[in-house]
Amino acid sequence: MKLLPLACAISAFTLSAHALAWDFVLLDSDKPAQNQRITSEQLGVKVDKPFSITMRTLHGGRQEGVSLIDIDNGTMKLTLVPTRGMNVLHAQVGDARMGWDSPVKEVVNPAFIELNGRGGLGWLEGFNELVTRCGYEWVGHPGMDNGELLTLHGRAANIPASKVTVHIDEAPPYAIHVRGELKEQAFKKVDFSVQTELVTEPGAARFVLNDTLTNNGDYPKEYQALYHSNFSTPFLEEGARFAAAVKQVSPFNDKAKGDLGDWQTYRAPTRDYDETVYNVVPYGDAKGDTLTVLHNKAGSLGVAVGFNVQQLPVFSLWKNTDTQGQGYVTGLEPGTSFSYNRRYQRPLNLVPTIEPKQQKQFSISYSLLADKPAVDKALKTIDTIRDGRQTEVRQRPLVDLSKE
Amino acid sequence: MKLLPLACAISAFTLSAHALAWDFVLLDSDKPAQNQRITSEQLGVKVDKPFSITMRTLHGGRQEGVSLIDIDNGTMKLTLVPTRGMNVLHAQVGDARMGWDSPVKEVVNPAFIELNGRGGLGWLEGFNELVTRCGYEWVGHPGMDNGELLTLHGRAANIPASKVTVHIDEAPPYAIHVRGELKEQAFKKVDFSVQTELVTEPGAARFVLNDTLTNNGDYPKEYQALYHSNFSTPFLEEGARFAAAVKQVSPFNDKAKGDLGDWQTYRAPTRDYDETVYNVVPYGDAKGDTLTVLHNKAGSLGVAVGFNVQQLPVFSLWKNTDTQGQGYVTGLEPGTSFSYNRRYQRPLNLVPTIEPKQQKQFSISYSLLADKPAVDKALKTIDTIRDGRQTEVRQRPLVDLSKE
Amino acid sequence: MKLLPLACAISAFTLSAHALAWDFVLLDSDKPAQNQRITSEQLGVKVDKPFSITMRTLHGGRQEGVSLIDIDNGTMKLTLVPTRGMNVLHAQVGDARMGWDSPVKEVVNPAFIELNGRGGLGWLEGFNELVTRCGYEWVGHPGMDNGELLTLHGRAANIPASKVTVHIDEAPPYAIHVRGELKEQAFKKVDFSVQTELVTEPGAARFVLNDTLTNNGDYPKEYQALYHSNFSTPFLEEGARFAAAVKQVSPFNDKAKGDLGDWQTYRAPTRDYDETVYNVVPYGDAKGDTLTVLHNKAGSLGVAVGFNVQQLPVFSLWKNTDTQGQGYVTGLEPGTSFSYNRRYQRPLNLVPTIEPKQQKQFSISYSLLADKPAVDKALKTIDTIRDGRQTEVRQRPLVDLSKE
Repeated sequence: MKLLPLACAISAFTLSAHALAWDFVLLDSDKPAQNQRITSEQLGVKVDKPFSITMRTLHGGRQEGVSLIDIDNGTMKLTLVPTRGMNVLHAQVGDARMGWDSPVKEVVNPAFIELNGRGGLGWLEGFNELVTRCGYEWVGHPGMDNGELLTLHGRAANIPASKVTVHIDEAPPYAIHVRGELKEQAFKKVDFSVQTELVTEPGAARFVLNDTLTNNGDYPKEYQALYHSNFSTPFLEEGARFAAAVKQVSPFNDKAKGDLGDWQTYRAPTRDYDETVYNVVPYGDAKGDTLTVLHNKAGSLGVAVGFNVQQLPVFSLWKNTDTQGQGYVTGLEPGTSFSYNRRYQRPLNLVPTIEPKQQKQFSISYSLLADKPAVDKALKTIDTIRDGRQTEVRQRPLVDLSKE
Repeated sequence: MKLLPLACAISAFTLSAHALAWDFVLLDSDKPAQNQRITSEQLGVKVDKPFSITMRTLHGGRQEGVSLIDIDNGTMKLTLVPTRGMNVLHAQVGDARMGWDSPVKEVVNPAFIELNGRGGLGWLEGFNELVTRCGYEWVGHPGMDNGELLTLHGRAANIPASKVTVHIDEAPPYAIHVRGELKEQAFKKVDFSVQTELVTEPGAARFVLNDTLTNNGDYPKEYQALYHSNFSTPFLEEGARFAAAVKQVSPFNDKAKGDLGDWQTYRAPTRDYDETVYNVVPYGDAKGDTLTVLHNKAGSLGVAVGFNVQQLPVFSLWKNTDTQGQGYVTGLEPGTSFSYNRRYQRPLNLVPTIEPKQQKQFSISYSLLADKPAVDKALKTIDTIRDGRQTEVRQRPLVDLSKE
Repeated sequence: MKLLPLACAISAFTLSAHALAWDFVLLDSDKPAQNQRITSEQLGVKVDKPFSITMRTLHGGRQEGVSLIDIDNGTMKLTLVPTRGMNVLHAQVGDARMGWDSPVKEVVNPAFIELNGRGGLGWLEGFNELVTRCGYEWVGHPGMDNGELLTLHGRAANIPASKVTVHIDEAPPYAIHVRGELKEQAFKKVDFSVQTELVTEPGAARFVLNDTLTNNGDYPKEYQALYHSNFSTPFLEEGARFAAAVKQVSPFNDKAKGDLGDWQTYRAPTRDYDETVYNVVPYGDAKGDTLTVLHNKAGSLGVAVGFNVQQLPVFSLWKNTDTQGQGYVTGLEPGTSFSYNRRYQRPLNLVPTIEPKQQKQFSISYSLLADKPAVDKALKTIDTIRDGRQTEVRQRPLVDLSKE
């Protein structure tokens, strides 16, 4: 692996007006992805735990040509996939792995996926990330809407990122920002761009996504966003629990009705369980901020996923507690929308509109809760957000899926 | 950018029998696309305005791996896209840009496009060229024909070219020829190849496409061709006009009926206009040659698109005078056929057949009309072609689209 | 072409426990495909006929980025396509070419193919190999099954191989093994891997495929396999014959009924013939081994395809004796199944199940029969396998295709 020639990599831009940062271009229209590495040592940054950002490319199989960015912030190791919507493949702190074991082992290049295959379920041939971006023209199950087959969860996860950059603050805590742009464009159909950003601070067991959706077009457009955030062991286990400040919960479909009483508790890997999904409307605090937590049975290890209900007003809890081999995984999924096909969500007012040139921000934080005090503190935060407000438990799905 | 090692690049072939040319291979089965540059200076050609041909590759996003060829003939700068059917991305003479601003900003690698997506409109995810080749198995709107979904405008624009070469005449005017082959093949279905050629002369504000379609198969086959040639400002503006020697004109559909009276005049960018299309049957001169002109309101700037009605008997005028952001553009589209789905065009006798081993030539010229005298001269040429013959204005579309 | 740095290429693994072989990695997740060459001379192997294995990459057109492996075993030259399911493109011994001339001239990168295009016939845009792997989720004609469009002959031929290796036995006869893994995975749908292997011995006019299908999932899964093995001249000609130990034969469809009387004899290239297909159930010997032979009219040249009826119980004879340009070719196709859509084959008990973690082996041998004695010997072997047992000739297809 070649060292990045730093003299070249530090842009002139950096050295002038914005002198409080280092900026590196990893990929651009005239710069191919190549093996490269940026380290705190190279930058002369004195930190307790040295950090590094490394780019590499996968070969063979359906992952031919896929670029990965590994970030080691000294505490957490993260892998991003520029070739797949800047998705977060996995994150690791010591033994605690955020992510899951999908049957899909390769990091699949979208060039090899037909999203329209399998009746619109082609997306499943690449799905294996910790955070998979869903959207932004649509999310949800495949089906016809306005005469067009909407494929599962939209195209974002299968759009390779343009212009991927790293920005490191030049002052403590030297936050690391990795950015990449997704262009979701089709003549007469859509002119979106999404500036994605992942931020993590050296030494932190935490990262944040800050995405900005822009409607570059001249007309208002429907849009949907959903952050499919997927966890397995060691957080998910028999007796593991989900906690949130819940305003309303309802079963996604008839199947989920049966387990509604236990919707916040998880099963062990269960043969033939497949999945149940619960539609959640969370409460936010005065600013709209809210927190959701998944923790193990003992309450000694967990993850917290934070977001803002003004940006992402609803949340799907996807409980796919089938066998390990089939995919033992739960999805904590803040979104503008649930996972129904778009045509079902308009009557629920969950297909928002973005005006011409308007921007929509989506910020989601992911934190490891490394011990019982951390879990307890997060649960206490949820209580504070809830502030004594009631939860409405709806017995029936919001959508009657038996009706076409 | 590396200089091409000329000693190697000039083929032995050149130096013997066909000594009146220089020949270069830019891309072949054993030669990957790479940054390279050929200049008149290298060749020792004395011209008033030096010329160059440059190959480069795009990276990032959905344009990863797309090759471009930039031709600077000293007066006109042209960009071709070998990875997308040898399409002409844009051409520029001084301030006058031939081409348009599509919402699709990337030059999209066909590997990332599902033509069958969006109900057969996946083509729209890559459409942004000055000249987009449509065909050659079919052109037209998506729809079922013979039990198969024909996707919008065929596959040609999304076929990467094989064996891309540059040929420069060794005698004045040192015409530059860029050639690439498109293979449109599927077992039991089609065995076409298209030898594409773009020719431009150093110093000229003009280029010509010379394409040769070959049916390599043993059976006669239906084929269709349409050259989707797209212009915007500075040619297109409120009051801009289209001129041609028109034998017959008819509205494409009911929507186009309303504006039939003004079919040769353009609107300013118009919110919610979308598009109107007029089906034109042009007159040719004694040899079948004809000319079409788009010029600005003042008649001081224009483009002329010339072709032969024996090769391309019909013409679509696509008036997409919607907002700039949505795509303010007009298409001058000579073709074997209109833009209806193929099943509608058989009764119109616009689905010709190519016999086994037969070849069909398509030549189309594109010229800048840089001032009023140039525009006037082109309009006069049209008059000469028309030679006093009448125009039939049909009030109703040739096809009743309400019938399935 | 660069020589492979042998010091590096010979793995440490080789030099220790398994000292009786040389092992080379041609392609892996961290090793891109590159031009490389392994020769018997480099290895210091003394053989009568030196052998070599060469890797190269194709460029331009729809074959951009396709890797090929050429094996020259001293007698037979073989070309494998890692990018296309480790298919065998062609094999050659002197003048005798195993393979055929498809209208598809490029070795098409699956990135450019939409299997779901053309109503599920997109596979035809890449079909040109001597051996095309079909399966393993399904084989057969496109059509709906369980609410999903199954595309022609499954996905295997369009899956690029992961981790491609060469293993050469260090003792005579120094057998050459080329291996590559196919991952056929989709969340909730399938978790198959196929370890493919091609084995050939230096100097032999013969190769063997040894494939191992593994169901990595936790649930039993339906699977199907079919080895589409395609031959043309010099084996196929007017009066050429097919021989096998046939337990039962039936016409695939109504069209094939007409030629049932001559089902083992071939026509010259025949205009408008298209194809006929015969469904064969072969007899095996006591171990299940069976042999099929295609030989020329004189019986002086042939190929033998051997397999085991416990692994691959049925066989399709595909007689596509249309014109040379359309594709004059016959397929000898051992399989778990015939070429009907999967939904038709369940009632025939031809959709087997693979249990979780279970493996299925498929071995198929391909031998040149270089002269009359070799052909006669192979025909005699077939007689021995048949052992006097009767052939049931069914007049009607096993499946009534007129019923949806």
